[in-house]
Amino acid sequence: MATAGKVIKCKAAVAWEPNKPLVIEEIEVAPPQTNEVRIKIVASGLCHTDLYHLFEGMHKDGFPAVLGHEGAGIVESVGPGVIEFQPGDKVIPLFISQCGECRFCKSPKTNQCVNAFHIFISTHFLLRDVGVMSPLESRFTCKGKKVLQFAGTSTFSEYTVVNQMAVAKIDPTAPLDKVCLLGCGICTGYGAAVNTAKVEPGSTCAVFGMGAVGLAAVMGCKAAGAKRIIAVDINPDKFEKAKEFGATDFVNPKDHSKPVSQVLSEMTDGGVDFSLECVGNVGVMRSALESCVRGWGVSVLVGWTDLDDFAARPIQLIAGRTWKGSLFGGFKSKDSVPLMVKKYLDKKILVDEFITHNMALDQVNDAIELMKQGKCIRTVLSISPQ
Amino acid sequence: MATAGKVIKCKAAVAWEPNKPLVIEEIEVAPPQTNEVRIKIVASGLCHTDLYHLFEGMHKDGFPAVLGHEGAGIVESVGPGVIEFQPGDKVIPLFISQCGECRFCKSPKTNQCVNAFHIFISTHFLLRDVGVMSPLESRFTCKGKKVLQFAGTSTFSEYTVVNQMAVAKIDPTAPLDKVCLLGCGICTGYGAAVNTAKVEPGSTCAVFGMGAVGLAAVMGCKAAGAKRIIAVDINPDKFEKAKEFGATDFVNPKDHSKPVSQVLSEMTDGGVDFSLECVGNVGVMRSALESCVRGWGVSVLVGWTDLDDFAARPIQLIAGRTWKGSLFGGFKSKDSVPLMVKKYLDKKILVDEFITHNMALDQVNDAIELMKQGKCIRTVLSISPQ
Repeated sequence: MATAGKVIKCKAAVAWEPNKPLVIEEIEVAPPQTNEVRIKIVASGLCHTDLYHLFEGMHKDGFPAVLGHEGAGIVESVGPGVIEFQPGDKVIPLFISQCGECRFCKSPKTNQCVNAFHIFISTHFLLRDVGVMSPLESRFTCKGKKVLQFAGTSTFSEYTVVNQMAVAKIDPTAPLDKVCLLGCGICTGYGAAVNTAKVEPGSTCAVFGMGAVGLAAVMGCKAAGAKRIIAVDINPDKFEKAKEFGATDFVNPKDHSKPVSQVLSEMTDGGVDFSLECVGNVGVMRSALESCVRGWGVSVLVGWTDLDDFAARPIQLIAGRTWKGSLFGGFKSKDSVPLMVKKYLDKKILVDEFITHNMALDQVNDAIELMKQGKCIRTVLSISPQ
Repeated sequence: MATAGKVIKCKAAVAWEPNKPLVIEEIEVAPPQTNEVRIKIVASGLCHTDLYHLFEGMHKDGFPAVLGHEGAGIVESVGPGVIEFQPGDKVIPLFISQCGECRFCKSPKTNQCVNAFHIFISTHFLLRDVGVMSPLESRFTCKGKKVLQFAGTSTFSEYTVVNQMAVAKIDPTAPLDKVCLLGCGICTGYGAAVNTAKVEPGSTCAVFGMGAVGLAAVMGCKAAGAKRIIAVDINPDKFEKAKEFGATDFVNPKDHSKPVSQVLSEMTDGGVDFSLECVGNVGVMRSALESCVRGWGVSVLVGWTDLDDFAARPIQLIAGRTWKGSLFGGFKSKDSVPLMVKKYLDKKILVDEFITHNMALDQVNDAIELMKQGKCIRTVLSISPQ
């Protein structure tokens, strides 16, 4: 390999500071160290969590950084100790690791590897909430400054470096400009329904928020055999798409003067069996819980926010409801992403249907603007030529 | 029967208004109507929820009322349509019904009969939270005024009238002045551990609040095979009792400058598998959740409060924790109370050990004072002679 062992200079979209457009820069990407893999990123989706970091979280220690955590690419080189990957392998970098050896990886109950948060917080993304852990060292520099790797992945760069415990090798026939979406949004929503909520055949579900994660949750509810899937969004433009993914009913809270939980309760004789909050808004989290039937209703937090507390009256749980949460849909990442790619290749899940726009990396700020305006489901950015 | 079909005049402790001592009065108890059972109450525990109604909830529509919902007695007479009970049967009146016919009763997932809240709110106890339902008519009058039946039971009266779907027939050899406690506190705590949290063998548990419910939760954790049970209370006098019930460790939050969740996390390498909040305080509910290990920790709201919201940061659930709640320990009431009585008779659960004081009905205000001061676990009041 011409580049192996050397610093690569390449193009990346750098977030120099919060609440500002990204800047296309030439950055330096160091060679992979022990147990690390350097990946040429071919394509990347833009996810709302990237926007969250830039416009909402805005942790001052989280910049400068390269955003992007929903990518797919090709292994360029590997560091010492890596035997599972070799140059040319098609891979999806994972923002949540699977070391396979910790008590969390060994438990069937969770996908949250003991190292997961270590990687997840590599840009201090979650630092103040999960306790003090050392952020991963970044392999990026630009103009003499260290640039952080957002969520440990940084897929808005032509090259990135990721620990092998956070890389999934996928079917070599998979189209990278499609399956990149399995690196976050689709697995997050689909898994929240099938793994976390454990939606049951014949059940009634409500999904709040018809972005990519919500649509994937609808798809998960359908796959699990739900007989009724109520899509809730304040943007009625999303409802046609929701139907394509399996929604049977549509509620726009703005069409009603009463609380949406009451609307859903009246539609369903007391509330839904399962609800999934795919917005990342604490008010919607409350509504989603209150929309569940007492006795056995399960509500899952899927959307990401960390600025405020979520809350409800104790009777909501005492009446028999359960409140859960999900990260990456409860999927053990390295094990599951290749299987989800296979499901796509076998036409058992939809992926192409999430993609409303394709753009070049240079257009990343246009893609951000589209998402802010709710005018896209997913934009896929082409990062490097294959 | 000399009294069957007639109004009975008897003694009861009447709560005329919030935040005032109860008054021993002569009340009139109407004959049981269709599907109703009139019960001579022999003994009754005093539970914190009685105090909650009197001193904290203080709903203006909830007075005058006869409190008490943890009693045991003997059937005096039955109304039309009642074939399951006959005069002389030993029974425990239930604040949560089991009709056996609704979709909730037919589901193994819940104990919350569709009529449960109907009965539970018969003194408007929960009216503003569960929606508008007609309170049950009361069978009590005093000095020409209707007196409400708290929680549908009103065991601080020599006689009460309860719908047969909320009465459990128990072993005729059971001592009523002991098994009355199975009408609320013991089942609530024990069941929260075994039915709601589903505590697993070998697990680590934390129980917050060492009142009767918390001690019963400790007993439930032990019965489920927990290897470590951490009792948390700000009153160190409770710890000796907790040990008797199975607690292995004791934490007094007042002994530490750091948050109790951090203390527990450090004691347990990251948090407990199961936590049970048996206080009824939203701040403690948050601590109990935050004390759970990420990935699979389950926290259950057991203590009752309805004055404030409970709250936490979304990451707490997204990190894999589950928040649940429990009413009457998830026990299907009519089915389970007779079995719990049998467990007691077979010496498989402790009951006598909860009783720290015995008093007469006339001393009910002294019993209330003891509980307010945290100086008792359970006081059993003798109501009528057997």
